[in-house]
Amino acid sequence: MKIAVIGASGTIGRAVVELLGNDHEIVTLGANSGDIRIDIRSRESVKTAFEQMGKVDAIINAVGELAFKPFGELNDEDWYVGIESKLLGQVRVTEEAVNYLNDGGSVTLTTGIISDTPIACGSSATAINGAVESYAKAAAIEAPRGIRINVVSPAMLEESKDTYGAFFPGFFAIPAKDVAQFYKRAVMGLETGKTLKCFAGNPV
Amino acid sequence: MKIAVIGASGTIGRAVVELLGNDHEIVTLGANSGDIRIDIRSRESVKTAFEQMGKVDAIINAVGELAFKPFGELNDEDWYVGIESKLLGQVRVTEEAVNYLNDGGSVTLTTGIISDTPIACGSSATAINGAVESYAKAAAIEAPRGIRINVVSPAMLEESKDTYGAFFPGFFAIPAKDVAQFYKRAVMGLETGKTLKCFAGNPV
Repeated sequence: MKIAVIGASGTIGRAVVELLGNDHEIVTLGANSGDIRIDIRSRESVKTAFEQMGKVDAIINAVGELAFKPFGELNDEDWYVGIESKLLGQVRVTEEAVNYLNDGGSVTLTTGIISDTPIACGSSATAINGAVESYAKAAAIEAPRGIRINVVSPAMLEESKDTYGAFFPGFFAIPAKDVAQFYKRAVMGLETGKTLKCFAGNPV
Repeated sequence: MKIAVIGASGTIGRAVVELLGNDHEIVTLGANSGDIRIDIRSRESVKTAFEQMGKVDAIINAVGELAFKPFGELNDEDWYVGIESKLLGQVRVTEEAVNYLNDGGSVTLTTGIISDTPIACGSSATAINGAVESYAKAAAIEAPRGIRINVVSPAMLEESKDTYGAFFPGFFAIPAKDVAQFYKRAVMGLETGKTLKCFAGNPV
């Protein structure tokens, strides 16, 4: 398979490339690194990047920003961070991907445990991640030519514990190499419209 | 109780006012009618409207637009219809409501069955409604002074069958007067962070 990974230099992206790179040809896309430059906040950028990329069998998106602030302190601008990046960014990737995916190809998007277990300062993040998971469910039933659309929702990463641990008190962490397995399942399996939840020891 | 209803002239809004108006004082808000003008696509408009409204015990929002188009035909502009109205519109109402709700007051938002059972042309609508339901779950845990935040998700309305029936083949319809009971439950009950699903004969 030829597999494109957006955000290949991130913690999840690197683990996905390492796991899938053994058996597949990988094209890496990123804001500042990789084979091809892409900014998912712009549909034009996504189109241009995919034109450079050409036909592939799977597209994995592992990027997307979110704003974290207490309820009552979020303003419209904070909301647009997640809307333009994590929500519309992933929507643009999915909608444009269809023109570059071979028959039976797949798109795999990324959310996070916060869509299921809200935390302090997380109302925008939970809403945006919820939107992405609902989107995959709906887009999957309309996608043409057997193209599948799924989401991987990781718990806090083992590798990010020092940075984000305080936001997730009592939450179990999962190493990125285990999260990568869920992307493999989304790419190689037959499921569609699903959110694969990788919550080590922390069922929802 | 003093209860504010945004979209009081709509099919749901009218049924809610009729049901709750028997026992409570109602303030009506709307884009083109009611006691107070409001455009939920603008935070300034929401703030101005709530300033006119003053303190209340419950705010019900029964307005919000969505774009319906086949997957692959939606563009960014279509997406912004739902984002500005049904998603951010309801977020703005909730975030600003907190300054005008008495202790233990409530906000009740509106989605629809499409968040659970996707239909053709519905990928944007499902995503946006999913965002609102996730939002309520998260915002509820952070809301101050015992303020509760819930969502009512109605199936296709009996009253809208002629207009929308073709989009919901085989779906059961529910009369607006029955939907109004779920808003009453959200306002008078103690639940918070919940989506109350009113799907007559059509469990998810």
